[in-house]
Amino acid sequence: MLKGIYTPIITPFKENGDIDYESMDYNLEKWIATDLDGLVVLGSNGEFVFLSQEEKIELMIHVIKKVDKRKKIIVGTSCESTRETIKFSNQAAQAGADAVLVLPPNYFKKAMNDEVLFTYFTEVADNVNVPLMIYNMPGNTGISMTSSVIARLSKNKNIIGIKDTSGDIVHIGEMIRDVDKDFTVFVGNAGYLLPALCLGAKGATLALANCLPEDCCKLVQLHRENKLAEAIALQLKMIEINKMVTGVYGIPGLKVALDQKGYKGGFPRRPLLPLEQGKKEALLKIIEEYDQQKWES
Amino acid sequence: MLKGIYTPIITPFKENGDIDYESMDYNLEKWIATDLDGLVVLGSNGEFVFLSQEEKIELMIHVIKKVDKRKKIIVGTSCESTRETIKFSNQAAQAGADAVLVLPPNYFKKAMNDEVLFTYFTEVADNVNVPLMIYNMPGNTGISMTSSVIARLSKNKNIIGIKDTSGDIVHIGEMIRDVDKDFTVFVGNAGYLLPALCLGAKGATLALANCLPEDCCKLVQLHRENKLAEAIALQLKMIEINKMVTGVYGIPGLKVALDQKGYKGGFPRRPLLPLEQGKKEALLKIIEEYDQQKWES
Amino acid sequence: MLKGIYTPIITPFKENGDIDYESMDYNLEKWIATDLDGLVVLGSNGEFVFLSQEEKIELMIHVIKKVDKRKKIIVGTSCESTRETIKFSNQAAQAGADAVLVLPPNYFKKAMNDEVLFTYFTEVADNVNVPLMIYNMPGNTGISMTSSVIARLSKNKNIIGIKDTSGDIVHIGEMIRDVDKDFTVFVGNAGYLLPALCLGAKGATLALANCLPEDCCKLVQLHRENKLAEAIALQLKMIEINKMVTGVYGIPGLKVALDQKGYKGGFPRRPLLPLEQGKKEALLKIIEEYDQQKWES
Amino acid sequence: MLKGIYTPIITPFKENGDIDYESMDYNLEKWIATDLDGLVVLGSNGEFVFLSQEEKIELMIHVIKKVDKRKKIIVGTSCESTRETIKFSNQAAQAGADAVLVLPPNYFKKAMNDEVLFTYFTEVADNVNVPLMIYNMPGNTGISMTSSVIARLSKNKNIIGIKDTSGDIVHIGEMIRDVDKDFTVFVGNAGYLLPALCLGAKGATLALANCLPEDCCKLVQLHRENKLAEAIALQLKMIEINKMVTGVYGIPGLKVALDQKGYKGGFPRRPLLPLEQGKKEALLKIIEEYDQQKWES
Repeated sequence: MLKGIYTPIITPFKENGDIDYESMDYNLEKWIATDLDGLVVLGSNGEFVFLSQEEKIELMIHVIKKVDKRKKIIVGTSCESTRETIKFSNQAAQAGADAVLVLPPNYFKKAMNDEVLFTYFTEVADNVNVPLMIYNMPGNTGISMTSSVIARLSKNKNIIGIKDTSGDIVHIGEMIRDVDKDFTVFVGNAGYLLPALCLGAKGATLALANCLPEDCCKLVQLHRENKLAEAIALQLKMIEINKMVTGVYGIPGLKVALDQKGYKGGFPRRPLLPLEQGKKEALLKIIEEYDQQKWES
Repeated sequence: MLKGIYTPIITPFKENGDIDYESMDYNLEKWIATDLDGLVVLGSNGEFVFLSQEEKIELMIHVIKKVDKRKKIIVGTSCESTRETIKFSNQAAQAGADAVLVLPPNYFKKAMNDEVLFTYFTEVADNVNVPLMIYNMPGNTGISMTSSVIARLSKNKNIIGIKDTSGDIVHIGEMIRDVDKDFTVFVGNAGYLLPALCLGAKGATLALANCLPEDCCKLVQLHRENKLAEAIALQLKMIEINKMVTGVYGIPGLKVALDQKGYKGGFPRRPLLPLEQGKKEALLKIIEEYDQQKWES
Repeated sequence: MLKGIYTPIITPFKENGDIDYESMDYNLEKWIATDLDGLVVLGSNGEFVFLSQEEKIELMIHVIKKVDKRKKIIVGTSCESTRETIKFSNQAAQAGADAVLVLPPNYFKKAMNDEVLFTYFTEVADNVNVPLMIYNMPGNTGISMTSSVIARLSKNKNIIGIKDTSGDIVHIGEMIRDVDKDFTVFVGNAGYLLPALCLGAKGATLALANCLPEDCCKLVQLHRENKLAEAIALQLKMIEINKMVTGVYGIPGLKVALDQKGYKGGFPRRPLLPLEQGKKEALLKIIEEYDQQKWES
Repeated sequence: MLKGIYTPIITPFKENGDIDYESMDYNLEKWIATDLDGLVVLGSNGEFVFLSQEEKIELMIHVIKKVDKRKKIIVGTSCESTRETIKFSNQAAQAGADAVLVLPPNYFKKAMNDEVLFTYFTEVADNVNVPLMIYNMPGNTGISMTSSVIARLSKNKNIIGIKDTSGDIVHIGEMIRDVDKDFTVFVGNAGYLLPALCLGAKGATLALANCLPEDCCKLVQLHRENKLAEAIALQLKMIEINKMVTGVYGIPGLKVALDQKGYKGGFPRRPLLPLEQGKKEALLKIIEEYDQQKWES
C-alpha cells in the first residue's frame, strides 16, 4: 500500500492556542490538489504532543471526514503505554484511518531494549484493526530502534512498514536488506531522500512536503525515471531549506514557510514560541533563494 | 519548605495492568511510618507516563486523601503543552498538593532552548495556585537545563526549587552558587547524594528511598552531624544497589526490591515487562549482599 | 586527479611487533594487480599511530619505491602540531607521494573550532610541496569538521579533496553542493558507498578494499554504467562484512579477513590484540557466507 | 606517595613556536615556592602532543634537573603503542621521574575494551622501572575507562593511582570503593575537587593550579581541617574561572591567566591560536572578579 510521498500535516493554531480548523481545512484542500500520496495526521509536525486526548480524537475525525478518501490517511496514535496505544489506534481504525503510525515508548529510554520494543509493537499490532507503521525517530525520542528488531517485526502481517528518521544511511540499508518483502521502508527527512531511494527505499514522509509537496514528489519521479543528474541537483537544492524548517527553526519555522508558500501555518502552541523577527527574516531569505534557484543541471 | 528526603512513590499494578490500590495503601502506611520528609506522586518511578489523564487525577486524589497531611505531597503534573500543565497543576492544587513537580517539555528537544524553557516555566508558575518545583531529568527527557536558566527561574516567587537528576556535580555546584536564597536544590539520585550535600544541596528525591527510606534518611543525618567517615561508607555502600534499581534494571527492578524489603511492588505496566528470572536472581543477590554489609567505618 | 577506489593498506606485523616487510611486499604486488586506483600508506588501517616517526618514514619510502608508480600513493602525514605535519608532509613529497592525507589535530577536541581548523589546514597546505587531502574521521578523532569549513578550505589550490568517514549522508551532500569544482569528495566507508556515489561523490578510500578490492571497484563500475539494481544488491551484500572488519572487529578482524582472502594480514601491533578464537570463527563464517552469496539481482 | 595537589605545568612557547625555556625556568621557581605537592611534566596542559619525541625528552630532562627534587615530578609518557610507551617511560625513569602518567591509547576508540586496556596497562607497568599512574581523560581521548578495569589494574604493584577527569562523581565513588588500598584516586579538574575529597579522593592534578596553586591547596587544607562551610564557598568561587581556563578558553586561556597572575604563559603552539582580543578581555574580567570576590562564608 505505501509508496511515494506523505506529509505529516501541521496543525494551525490561533494566537490563543486553540486549533484553527478553518486554516486546517484550507490547507487540506491545497494538499489534496497535489501529487502527494497521503497525509499523516497527529504526527510530530502536527504537534500531537500538545493536544489533549479529546482534541486528538476530534481533529482526527475531522480530517478523515474532510479528506473523504481523496488521499490516504495515516494517524499518529502513539501513547506511552501499550493499552493506551491500542485503544487510540482502534479509535483511529473506527474513524477510517488507512494506517496508524506508532513511535516506540520513549520516556524510559534505558528500558527500551529489543525485547521490550518487540513485545510492545507485537501486542499493539495484534490488538488493533488497522495496519501499523513503525515510526523510528531518535531525534525526538532518544531511542534508535535496531535493524534486527525491525526485521523481526516486519514479519508481523499487521505491521506494514517503517518511517525511519534516524538519518543513518547504513541502518536504512540494513532494513532494506532484512525486512519482509511486503514491508515498506520510508525515510522521514527530505535531506537524504535521494540516497535512500537509490538504496531501495519506497518513499518518504516529509515535513518539508507540507510547504513544498511538488518538489518532494518531483524528486521521487526523477528517480523513477532514472534522471539522476537532475535528481542530484534537486536533492542538493533541498538540503538547506529542509535543514531550516525541520532542524534549526523547527515547527515555528515550518509554519512561516507554509505562510510564505500560500498555506496557512498559524501559530505554534505553547511552549513553542512563534519565530522571532530576526530568524523569520533569515528564513524568508532562504525561501526566496530557494525559489529563485534553478536545479536542472 | 523543602529539605531532607522525598521518595517518588511507585505505582503497583495488577497483572492485568490495572492500578493496585490495595498495595498502594499498604505501601503508603509503611512510608508514612518512616523518617521520609515527603512523597512524590506521579513521578517517573510512579510510571505516570503510562496512566491516562483520568487515572492520574484519581490516583493523585486517592493518595493525598490517604496520606492526610502525615507527609508532604508533591505531585508530578508535567504535560507537554503549557495549557495542559497549568490545568493539571491547578487540579493538583485543588486536591491539596503541597507542590507540583514539572519537567521541561521534551518531545521537541532541539526547540527547548533557554528562552522557550524560561517562558514555559514562568507561564506555568504564574498561572497555578501551588508552588512549583522544576524537574531536570536529562536521562529521560534528553534535555539538560542550563544553570543560567535555572538561576533566572529561581527568582520567580512561585518556583521554589529543583530536583536535578543530571548527575553533573559541577552543574549542581553552579546552581547552588547562583539560585535565589529561598530556592531549594535537591538531587534526584542516591548515587551522588553525599557529594551533593557536601556542596550545599538541601536534600533529595530518591527512587531508592522507595525501598530503603531509612538508609537514605540516615545519610542525610550523618552529614548533618558531620560524621563524614561514616557518611562516606554508607554512600559507597549505596552506589551499587542504587545503580541496579534506577539504571540497569529500572522500575521492574525497583519493584522486585520493594517486594524483597517488605513493600508491595506489584507489576510494572506494559510496555515495561516484569524482570526476567535470571535478572531477578542477580538483583536479589545484590540486595542480600547489601543487607549483610556493614558500613560503619 | 582523485577518483575511484583507494585502499588504506594495512601494515602486517610479526608476532614480536616488528614490521613484516616481506608480507607487505607480497600484499603490494597483489593490490597492484587489481583495479584499485591507488593506495594510502600510513592511514588508520595502517596502524600509523603505533609506528615511531622513524618507522613511518622508512615504511613510506619502502612502499613508494616498491610500487614504483604502478598505483597512485597517498601518504598519511598527520601529526598534532602544525610544524610536525608540515615537516612530515614535505618528507613524503620528497619520497614521491602523489598526495598527503591529513587529519584535523584532535587531542584538544574542544579547541578545534572552524577557525583553528581553517588556519591549520591552510598553513599546512601553503607550506608543503604536495597536494593535500583532508581526512574527516569523527569515529577516531572525535571531531566532525563542518561542511562550511571544508567548503572554505576547498578554495585552496593545494587542498584537492576530502576523505569523509562521518557517515552523515546529509553532510556529504552539503560538501558536494558547496566545495570548489576541482575538489574531490571521497567517502571512507564501504557501508554507504553507493548512496554517496548517487549523490555525486567521486570515489572512496575503503578499508574493505584491502581484502575485497574487486567488489569495491565493481560497485563503482556498476554505478557508472547505471546498473542500479545490481549496484543496490552488491551494496547491501557488502554492509555486513564491512561492519565486521571496520567496526565490530576492527583492524584485528580486517587482518583475519586478509589472511582468508589470500593476502598476508599478519599480527596487529600492541595494544591491539589478535582476534580471539571465538570472534575469529564468527568472522570466518561471515566471510564464507559473503563468498557464497550471489548479489546479481 | 600521592596526595594533595599537583599541577600539570604548561609549556611556554615563543611566538615562532620554539619552547621558551627561560619562561619555563621562571615559572618553575614560582611553583616550587608554593605548597604544591608536585608537578606533572608533559601533561595535556603541557601541550605534549605538539612536541616531537626529541623535544619531549629534552624538556623532561631539563625540568627534572631544574626542580632537583624540590617537588615530586610525574612525567606524561603516553604513546599510542605499548612498545613506545614502555620505551619512553623507561627514559623518564632514567631521567629521575617519580612516576609516569599514562593515558589509554585512544585513536582506535572502539577497540579499547576492558581487555585491551587491562593488557596495555599491565604490559606497560610490568616493563617499566617507575611507578605508573593511569590518566583517564574522556574529554580528550573519547575513552571512559570503567571502574571495574581500574579496580583490576589497581592490584598491580607498579600501578599506584589514577588521575580521573571523567567528571562522573558516581564513577569516582565506585573507584574509591573498589581499588586496592594502596592505590590513590586523584581527580583532574578543580570544578569538583571538594565533592571528590568528600567521597574519599586523596587529591588532584589540576590545570587551574598552574595559575592559582594557593587556592587549590587551600581547598584541600580546609577539607582536611573539616571547615566545610568555608570549603564550599571556595569551591563555588573556583567553578567559573576553572571552567574558563580548562573548558571554554582552554590552553590559550590558561596561558593568559598565567600572565595575569605573575607567571609567564607564553604562546600556545600551532594549531592552537592565541586567545583573540575579545575573549582575552572577557577572561581578564573574570579573573578580576575572582580576585575581588571574598569566599570566606
